[in-house]
Amino acid sequence: MSTTTDQPEVSFDTEPSAYRHWKIDVDGEIAQLRLDIDEAGGIVPGYELKMNSYDLGVDIELYDATQRLRFEHPEVRAVVLTSAKDRNFCAGANIRMLAQSSHPWKVNFCKFTNETRNGIEDATANSGQTWIAALNGTAAGGGYEMALACEQILLIDDNSSAVSLPEVPLLGVLPGTGGLTRVIDKRRVRKDRADVFATRSEGVRGKQAVEWRLVDEVIPKRQWDEAVAERAAAAAGRSTRPAGAQGITLPPLQREVTADGIRYQHVEARFEREQGLVEITVFGPEGDVPDTVERVHELGAGFWPLAMTRELDDLILRLRTNELELGTWIVRTKGDVEDALAFERVIAEHSRDDWLVNEIRHYFKRVLKRLDVTSRSLIALIEPGSCFAGALLELALACDRQYMLEGFMEEDSQEGEPAQLVLSESNFGAFPMSNGLSRLGSRFYGDDDTVAKLRQETGRRIEAVEAMELGLVTDAPDDIDWEDEIRIMLEERASLSPDALTGMEANHRFVGPETMESRIFSRLTAWQNWIFVRPNASGPDGALRRYGTGRKADFDRKRV
Amino acid sequence: MSTTTDQPEVSFDTEPSAYRHWKIDVDGEIAQLRLDIDEAGGIVPGYELKMNSYDLGVDIELYDATQRLRFEHPEVRAVVLTSAKDRNFCAGANIRMLAQSSHPWKVNFCKFTNETRNGIEDATANSGQTWIAALNGTAAGGGYEMALACEQILLIDDNSSAVSLPEVPLLGVLPGTGGLTRVIDKRRVRKDRADVFATRSEGVRGKQAVEWRLVDEVIPKRQWDEAVAERAAAAAGRSTRPAGAQGITLPPLQREVTADGIRYQHVEARFEREQGLVEITVFGPEGDVPDTVERVHELGAGFWPLAMTRELDDLILRLRTNELELGTWIVRTKGDVEDALAFERVIAEHSRDDWLVNEIRHYFKRVLKRLDVTSRSLIALIEPGSCFAGALLELALACDRQYMLEGFMEEDSQEGEPAQLVLSESNFGAFPMSNGLSRLGSRFYGDDDTVAKLRQETGRRIEAVEAMELGLVTDAPDDIDWEDEIRIMLEERASLSPDALTGMEANHRFVGPETMESRIFSRLTAWQNWIFVRPNASGPDGALRRYGTGRKADFDRKRV
Repeated sequence: MSTTTDQPEVSFDTEPSAYRHWKIDVDGEIAQLRLDIDEAGGIVPGYELKMNSYDLGVDIELYDATQRLRFEHPEVRAVVLTSAKDRNFCAGANIRMLAQSSHPWKVNFCKFTNETRNGIEDATANSGQTWIAALNGTAAGGGYEMALACEQILLIDDNSSAVSLPEVPLLGVLPGTGGLTRVIDKRRVRKDRADVFATRSEGVRGKQAVEWRLVDEVIPKRQWDEAVAERAAAAAGRSTRPAGAQGITLPPLQREVTADGIRYQHVEARFEREQGLVEITVFGPEGDVPDTVERVHELGAGFWPLAMTRELDDLILRLRTNELELGTWIVRTKGDVEDALAFERVIAEHSRDDWLVNEIRHYFKRVLKRLDVTSRSLIALIEPGSCFAGALLELALACDRQYMLEGFMEEDSQEGEPAQLVLSESNFGAFPMSNGLSRLGSRFYGDDDTVAKLRQETGRRIEAVEAMELGLVTDAPDDIDWEDEIRIMLEERASLSPDALTGMEANHRFVGPETMESRIFSRLTAWQNWIFVRPNASGPDGALRRYGTGRKADFDRKRV
Repeated sequence: MSTTTDQPEVSFDTEPSAYRHWKIDVDGEIAQLRLDIDEAGGIVPGYELKMNSYDLGVDIELYDATQRLRFEHPEVRAVVLTSAKDRNFCAGANIRMLAQSSHPWKVNFCKFTNETRNGIEDATANSGQTWIAALNGTAAGGGYEMALACEQILLIDDNSSAVSLPEVPLLGVLPGTGGLTRVIDKRRVRKDRADVFATRSEGVRGKQAVEWRLVDEVIPKRQWDEAVAERAAAAAGRSTRPAGAQGITLPPLQREVTADGIRYQHVEARFEREQGLVEITVFGPEGDVPDTVERVHELGAGFWPLAMTRELDDLILRLRTNELELGTWIVRTKGDVEDALAFERVIAEHSRDDWLVNEIRHYFKRVLKRLDVTSRSLIALIEPGSCFAGALLELALACDRQYMLEGFMEEDSQEGEPAQLVLSESNFGAFPMSNGLSRLGSRFYGDDDTVAKLRQETGRRIEAVEAMELGLVTDAPDDIDWEDEIRIMLEERASLSPDALTGMEANHRFVGPETMESRIFSRLTAWQNWIFVRPNASGPDGALRRYGTGRKADFDRKRV
């Protein structure tokens, strides 16, 4: 079904009993997540996952594990990330996989793995689940980067296990999942030491690794198990996770995939291949609003905000990976504005006092962040019958443009109400972007007065003319102009260079401040994208292609 | 002499009487800088500079003008940037030039033009010279980006003159000199409007340009001259520039260029082509320290801090542009530590009360910033006889690594003193990096205690062992290890992928916060570098190559 022939259709479905590469053991408040890669379990043919090295399939399982720990295991207060293999934590992304992969595959792989590592930090910061990397063997490249996403890094002292980022010296590429940024920003390793470290293929071990702040502790082999258990118990003791909480179950997603689209319960995508676009509709909630937080727990994964978020997450990942030529995503909502607001009120009211509601809020936040870094043109269409209210309005604000129909389409019966937007408190910080600002804060960057004024407008239905005046939409054509304007806009978009659009949107979407997270997607990822397409890395004589052949790479020596 | 055959050796020497493309008129406190491009005056053959479009040669003159206005014209309090051509301000970077240029040429061109535009903002912020863009005709692409660097943008209202960024729709590349960033960060144009603007090749004019904040004012043609003069006079009236000041003269730089290097009075570069490196030595001051600020003015361009800075600036630009295969720069200083400190004391004492000393400080700051964004490995070698003290220590701190000899080399007579560093107040904020931090603040990011402790150590001579303890140097080998360690380090460096080193250093050098300036070099430039090497832009069927041929570009539609 995919229009690209050089890669398989990827599914993000999995669950612990299906894991080929991870072992997850929950023992009271501590979870052990052990990497135990099945060499023959590559997601595509052509390479073996030696030395506990990973590919997209391994990371899909890791992402699933992070989600289940948060939703299914509220009792877990510390997660120990370690290896089931002796003397080898993880050798990072599989090099033959990288060497054989297309540029889009590499870029999508890095983006997804980055999001998963950011999610690990998010669990530590916002879920009271502290991740501890227990490096019982060497952690190289992406292996060390996985550890860097943890709050603490423990390294076994066995005279051989080291941490390293050998990408630059061995492969001619950068560590692609945040390594350079986290080493200096998070671990606060001095620039000159970071330089030595990232150019020394064998890495650093023992006392020096602690002195340089690359790890927090080195622990002798005979004390290892005990010390790791102690550190995990100490982290768990600091957790804000509630006692005696019961997890919910995340059942498999139900979806119908056809040649023309994907249909979930609350989310739908229709492909328009001729025009290179996909029409996404998010359906608002139906049925009774839970009147107690207990009812939310009973509903569990069936609670609309969570069910919709899971489906949207899955859709974004599938479209990104499998539908490379659908360059424009049209985003619509459909449903009742009051119902949408009622459901989001449950989230707003209980996200501080209930662990599950808190998880749902942070999950929706993370899915919105995926949209922010998605290299597709995002266009919101706001029409009668839509429900861009509060949290759902964030979907429109994440888009590059927002078009709102003024009045009704001629053929409509003009019954019901015209298109409306509703602001709520959720739009003022509940779902921050990676730059730390709300989407309205980014939209009106440097203009605090406007943001303050908008805050006075929450709860009201705002129609097209007023939405234009308030600066909430890009344009508000009436029925006479709507179809032509939208059609021409989409045709123009489709005629532009896909690469230039990616670069332009990646710049426009992030204004003002940057955070470690946003810096990973700007500086690091952007430079890596460049390096990935250069012959020095990916050419037939480049370092990535020649690795392991015994032949040295042949470099163009010009410095750019 | 250049080792690259596809481009000429570039010189950055010029002065107003030699300008082919600019007219500069100083009338009291207002300077007019008029762009009047000589179509036949391209810096390399192969294209005509039609429509007031520019290439590197045009920008070399602009850079020269910015420097002369600051040093030679202290009386100038406002600079009006306009065009000498009717109905056409500037069409931006010449497209045929871009289409025919190598990747390194394009990247170097963008970097230099970015630095010049940052310099225009620096003059407005720190020199009391407010730049006003008086767009008496259409400003497209790089033409509008030049205007964006100004404090105010005035646009003539003649029913045709517009501002635009047509790079994405017409050329499949990004506006390369800060356009996307300045539109959202500085002009605070809403993201969705920025998207419409940057994909609409004809741009925006008239009232909408003001409403969208793309320009500050549109002014009817008949009021144009008067209004521009008024705005310039008003800006001049707000200037902090002193009354009655006399400028100094910037004479041509004296340099000797040979096959093996470049020798100036205070700066020397020796090329080691076999090893792919250049050895740079900055010589400290000699002779009497000026005892009054009047004496500094008498010395003018001969005052060592200014003379050295001009030479270093020129050297950096020449090496970047002409010596692409010299991938490692070794940085040394030679001279008397006390003299270096005495000269910098003059700068520190008078930079607030004397316009010239203030200019010198900001100029050295800008040259250090050039180092920060230079895509070469920078290695400081600190040996006996060096003078890395205060401001000159910034040169070492700008490097990726610092090596300091402990004791003396065997063959030396062991007379004199071992290698020493001296911290001064200058190292704590006088020369901020583009991220807003001092180089020590970046080196010890998040560790304010260490920075505070170092501040207690100013004025003292710090030898190698202590410099190691204080974290000021990467390593301090003694005479037995020095030569081998340095040699092996340089050989290893030379063996690595030039592209990967560029990406790694661009990440390591900037820690923590970002500013509009740093974001231009990270997000925007990094994405542009990627787009520049993609077939959709630069391939034979790409938009950049096909522009003006009447044939539409042929795009790979995959979104990455």
